[in-house]
Amino acid sequence: MSKKICLYDTTLRDGTQAEGISLSVEDKVKIAARLDQFGIDWIEGGWPGSNPKDMAFFEKMKEFPLKQAKIAAFGSTCRPGVAAEVDSNLQAILDSGAAVATIFGKSWDLHVLEALKTSLEENLRMVRDSISYLKQHQRTVIFDAEHFFDGFKQNADYAVSVLKAAEEAGADWIVLCDTNGGSLPHEVYQIVQTVRQQIATPLGIHSHNDGELGVANALAAVQAGAEQVQGTINGIGERCGNANLISVVANLQLKMGYSCVAEEQLQQLTKLSRYVAEIANMATPNNQPFVGNSAFAHKGGIHVSAVLKDPQTYEHIAPEQVGNRRRVLVSELAGQSNLLAKSEELQISFDGNKQEAREMIQQIKEREFQGYQYEGAEASLSLLLLESSGKLNPLFSLDSFKILMEKTAEHAILSEATVKVRVNGQIMHTAAEGNGPVNALDNALRKALEGVFPVLSQMHLTDYKVRVLDESEATAAKVRVLIESMRNGEKWSTVGVSTNVIEASWEALVDSIRYLLWKEGCTPQELEEQTEQRVGIVNH
Amino acid sequence: MSKKICLYDTTLRDGTQAEGISLSVEDKVKIAARLDQFGIDWIEGGWPGSNPKDMAFFEKMKEFPLKQAKIAAFGSTCRPGVAAEVDSNLQAILDSGAAVATIFGKSWDLHVLEALKTSLEENLRMVRDSISYLKQHQRTVIFDAEHFFDGFKQNADYAVSVLKAAEEAGADWIVLCDTNGGSLPHEVYQIVQTVRQQIATPLGIHSHNDGELGVANALAAVQAGAEQVQGTINGIGERCGNANLISVVANLQLKMGYSCVAEEQLQQLTKLSRYVAEIANMATPNNQPFVGNSAFAHKGGIHVSAVLKDPQTYEHIAPEQVGNRRRVLVSELAGQSNLLAKSEELQISFDGNKQEAREMIQQIKEREFQGYQYEGAEASLSLLLLESSGKLNPLFSLDSFKILMEKTAEHAILSEATVKVRVNGQIMHTAAEGNGPVNALDNALRKALEGVFPVLSQMHLTDYKVRVLDESEATAAKVRVLIESMRNGEKWSTVGVSTNVIEASWEALVDSIRYLLWKEGCTPQELEEQTEQRVGIVNH
Repeated sequence: MSKKICLYDTTLRDGTQAEGISLSVEDKVKIAARLDQFGIDWIEGGWPGSNPKDMAFFEKMKEFPLKQAKIAAFGSTCRPGVAAEVDSNLQAILDSGAAVATIFGKSWDLHVLEALKTSLEENLRMVRDSISYLKQHQRTVIFDAEHFFDGFKQNADYAVSVLKAAEEAGADWIVLCDTNGGSLPHEVYQIVQTVRQQIATPLGIHSHNDGELGVANALAAVQAGAEQVQGTINGIGERCGNANLISVVANLQLKMGYSCVAEEQLQQLTKLSRYVAEIANMATPNNQPFVGNSAFAHKGGIHVSAVLKDPQTYEHIAPEQVGNRRRVLVSELAGQSNLLAKSEELQISFDGNKQEAREMIQQIKEREFQGYQYEGAEASLSLLLLESSGKLNPLFSLDSFKILMEKTAEHAILSEATVKVRVNGQIMHTAAEGNGPVNALDNALRKALEGVFPVLSQMHLTDYKVRVLDESEATAAKVRVLIESMRNGEKWSTVGVSTNVIEASWEALVDSIRYLLWKEGCTPQELEEQTEQRVGIVNH
Repeated sequence: MSKKICLYDTTLRDGTQAEGISLSVEDKVKIAARLDQFGIDWIEGGWPGSNPKDMAFFEKMKEFPLKQAKIAAFGSTCRPGVAAEVDSNLQAILDSGAAVATIFGKSWDLHVLEALKTSLEENLRMVRDSISYLKQHQRTVIFDAEHFFDGFKQNADYAVSVLKAAEEAGADWIVLCDTNGGSLPHEVYQIVQTVRQQIATPLGIHSHNDGELGVANALAAVQAGAEQVQGTINGIGERCGNANLISVVANLQLKMGYSCVAEEQLQQLTKLSRYVAEIANMATPNNQPFVGNSAFAHKGGIHVSAVLKDPQTYEHIAPEQVGNRRRVLVSELAGQSNLLAKSEELQISFDGNKQEAREMIQQIKEREFQGYQYEGAEASLSLLLLESSGKLNPLFSLDSFKILMEKTAEHAILSEATVKVRVNGQIMHTAAEGNGPVNALDNALRKALEGVFPVLSQMHLTDYKVRVLDESEATAAKVRVLIESMRNGEKWSTVGVSTNVIEASWEALVDSIRYLLWKEGCTPQELEEQTEQRVGIVNH
């Protein structure tokens, strides 16, 4: 049996301190449910005394019983000179109804004297009284020793005396916090070991990433005896973020022999990371360890040929263990082996004709030079491969489109598009409005095609990104549009490039539709029958 | 005197293996010059045998003498069964003209037997002969022991015998590579210590970030005796990237007492990070340690008030040491102290009227709820603060604009905009074309205003970003447009939100112009005089 390390997630509290992150109460409830399902032990829901949104979350959670996770309410000890029983912050923690109370107290003498402006003795009283009071109300109490490592380095005796006060008052857990995030792994290891010899209460670690060492510091603390790790999903948090629980769990469980969650849950790690990112409306980096889109992507020709022979030659773990997958990238650094592997991965039977493969690579290089990027737009790459091997039926072609927008001081902006496309000899001429030029164009195009290809009504766009390629030219520069589409939970991405954002969007829109029609095997035959039935509706 | 740790940058070689990164020869030359200026010891320029672009870089660099950095050419040992003297790869390294040759060889028996398909003895011969041959040609030789840590864990004797072969053949440096990036800091520390006892040649470390431990592993190796760190700027590299030299340097020099670059160079760290990101056309994460835009950004109310009293309470280093700066964020989590500090930072004299400040916070919260984000658009926030305190002269107002776009199968897309604005009672009605709707609008608006405000001709847009806010709605969803503008090297950012991308762009465009006019103190008086002179030109 491997030793259990408990996970304490603070995405909903410390995570929302990150720049650009803002979660609604519903967002928080969704994330909490998902964390519970994954096997997180404690979910810190917020600071009930600090704002109404956090209090609303605790109210809401009373209606949502969790399977195994416990909800924790966060807050500070009572204030200087105030008795615990009358402190409004502690009262708010009790009122939240959370079974677990996590309170932070100062353990760095500088903070006590300079930030709190009170005496070292009074600070010990605040810690003791606050914990005793919460224990009297039958709460599990987790004591976060704020700035513990900085405090220990400057005044070890006082820092430890704060922990002892918490222990004597009955804290269930004592968590050592590297609040400023500047500690180094060997310091964390040594300090946790020293504390371990003086404190019997189970210890936790709360690290930040200001030195790019948040994960390393959490692991070092566990090796020195900590049994609880606090962190956030994807490492979001104030400044440079918190320890990334995604990487912490993967390292602890896959490499260090500890046990955190069930093995089948670990295979949900990639999904968990992306789910939280989506709810928080944040882009996760492609190169995020373990779960990033590039984490098991191979670009160099040598790496690709070796990894296809034996994955462990260039992969530290099997991607499936964390629910991720291997990808082979096609780019100017790549050789034929990448392209052939890609064709296979995409289930395109691109015959191993060497001359054809060379020409294909040349074509991809030229388009990448123009600004296309196929690494993030695999559906467009598939279409390119299919087209150049003569296996793509274009199904429809553009005659023309027009877009008109008008805005006056008094009225909201109006966008209208007209589209004229040819489908199997028939001309479809449609008009539509939309919430913007691309949406109007999308609506008019769908109007022209949905009657003929009903499957298009099940597809929708899930993301739309614009990247300026030559930033020195700004609004006159070439832009790359990436569109992500979805149908029945399956996603695909397409790309368009132009100096005109609308033209680039059109190109990516057309690719997104063509890709679905190709995947669904829509053929000209099928088209002909349907056209006859539906063309009247389409044209009116 | 603190111990010197040498820096080996492989941004131009391993960095370009990252997904989405592609550098032209000119890009590589620019980055090399900047790395030299910063104080990097070795710059790995590429793999001359592998592609023409890399060879072109070495040719180009012969014309650019560097101040202190040495250029290194990368490649593998000779192939199995091939003598060093006739190996085309080694020949390409010599032909590159680089004074330093970095060659990698296998040190994991699995790779020798399975990937190279040769004998363990032949691999030792390849290492020995390749190094001897390069030494005969007066090259400094750095031997990269590929997969050393994985190899050591499975067959320590063989892994060390490879290093001994390199040492006997005269390698100047032996670099231990964690090629798959899966090692843990305590393993790296122990293994480097063990090697240190058997190898006298100076050691280096080459780590990857697959476990989110790239920086920690580099630091652990230095503590165990390594004297050279290989990595990339911003940690770009294949899969999850390489050790981030930015964080490595900052930790080694500011926290661990080693010396890497001159102190004044360390203050260029933030600029270096952003310069390389710009050349590589990659977005750096806001939360990047040390140099990110959020690295010293304070959002929580308690943190803000404490950090204003004493920065070390919530900052692990002074931001100026790495050329970064402190920022106070205004958001729904923030209290009045953030807003007041922000006003001061923005040099807006927003009177400390408490009621006014509360109303302002309320207004910001409401706009954030609608989708605005002021954390990344400080110029728009300034305008909001100025406007609500009655100190902003709007200078011009919109009557109407229209945009027409047309695309046919035969012709490129055309975009035309007309703009009618009122400036000090006069109506300016202009028309312009552009490379897209926003550019046409921008051109027409400038045409209307530049005559009146000549300073606008010096300003240009440097970035244009579109973010879909409610991704489930895709092209019908609300979008946020962020525009970055620049004049004389100074940048500012503005935001617009709408369900229509053009309306959102208009809002951000207008803010970007208003901000500059406010900064430059353009007043209605000045305006009146100029209008009389220029209106004829503007209107024709």
